[in-house]
Amino acid sequence: MVNKKVVARLSSYRTALIRFHELGFVKVFSDTLAEAVGATSAQVRKDFSLFGISGNKKGGYQTDVLIEKLQSLLGKDRVQPVLIVGIGNIGTALLKYRGFEDEGIRIVAGFDLDPTKVNRKLKVPILPADEMPDFIREQRVTIGIIAVPDAAAQAVCDTLVAAGIRGILNFAPIVLRAEEGVVVNNVNLQNELENVIYFVNTLAKQIKGK
Amino acid sequence: MVNKKVVARLSSYRTALIRFHELGFVKVFSDTLAEAVGATSAQVRKDFSLFGISGNKKGGYQTDVLIEKLQSLLGKDRVQPVLIVGIGNIGTALLKYRGFEDEGIRIVAGFDLDPTKVNRKLKVPILPADEMPDFIREQRVTIGIIAVPDAAAQAVCDTLVAAGIRGILNFAPIVLRAEEGVVVNNVNLQNELENVIYFVNTLAKQIKGK
Repeated sequence: MVNKKVVARLSSYRTALIRFHELGFVKVFSDTLAEAVGATSAQVRKDFSLFGISGNKKGGYQTDVLIEKLQSLLGKDRVQPVLIVGIGNIGTALLKYRGFEDEGIRIVAGFDLDPTKVNRKLKVPILPADEMPDFIREQRVTIGIIAVPDAAAQAVCDTLVAAGIRGILNFAPIVLRAEEGVVVNNVNLQNELENVIYFVNTLAKQIKGK
Repeated sequence: MVNKKVVARLSSYRTALIRFHELGFVKVFSDTLAEAVGATSAQVRKDFSLFGISGNKKGGYQTDVLIEKLQSLLGKDRVQPVLIVGIGNIGTALLKYRGFEDEGIRIVAGFDLDPTKVNRKLKVPILPADEMPDFIREQRVTIGIIAVPDAAAQAVCDTLVAAGIRGILNFAPIVLRAEEGVVVNNVNLQNELENVIYFVNTLAKQIKGK
């Protein structure tokens, strides 16, 4: 089954392969790729077989062919427009994040309720929140990032979905509800950091207890 | 077994409980809590039983007692100092992110190689990268956030661990290697967004295919 983890690994394979390609590798073996992304070579072969990609035991995978297949699977063969709602600390960072551009993702606009943040002259314009539905319909944007405070996040999610957004990356620390057929991926930064703290403290207690 | 997902849910329960408490709830039932975090009530009871927390079928859980237990489990009964390496877009956003403060996490310093970013007068000072090892030892910081470009991330990780850091939240889009006993949690923003795009495109193809 293709789940979130498999797709995350496809992204990682792709990034690693592009680097190998830049370094002049014409072919790459599953164990080299596994090493680069922190997986096992069996896992690499299993992931690729899910998508009908097979290597050659002697020669491995052809780097350029594999990159092209992954690009197509990950929707990188065309530029994907994405908008950001909430131009606070996280939203601003994502607006400027260069990692996206390299990956065929184009942030097309930011939206905020605060009129002092609106700036139509920027390369990526920041627009008033009430222009969001028309923008989504006119520009046919289907992916949105939510970076608003948690109390506002569900209402923003509803507005986005009603206007045609089909996929949401949510940074507000709440669980968003959306109709079936809409993909919501939550990134909870507090939880991620709390997780690290929890396991560090647990390990420290275990060591003390010995 | 206590895994990452369980701990993430503990964080979510805690956040929800604090809200219920603010709203005046003295007791809360597992199904109410489940609803708030997008889990099932069976899951809530199972998670709590892992830590020896049991409710009362008639009365549910006592809100204040439960909050206190979760605070202690999540290491919130004391302030946790955390440092950030790399004061670019993401690092800057995290330095200012108010969500951490509310959670007993205190960002104590930022570090950057670029001398123009250094500013000792800020409430959270930004210091030169070469002061990092001494700072970690003197202030006994055990948790670090890495937000440097991917090419520099492994070297930063090694420096942090050598100085005493035991837990790392990594935003650089590579897989970091650290010795056993060090917790590394990777947040790959590109992969998270690519995941959303992948599933939206897959769903769109399925609908078209019908």
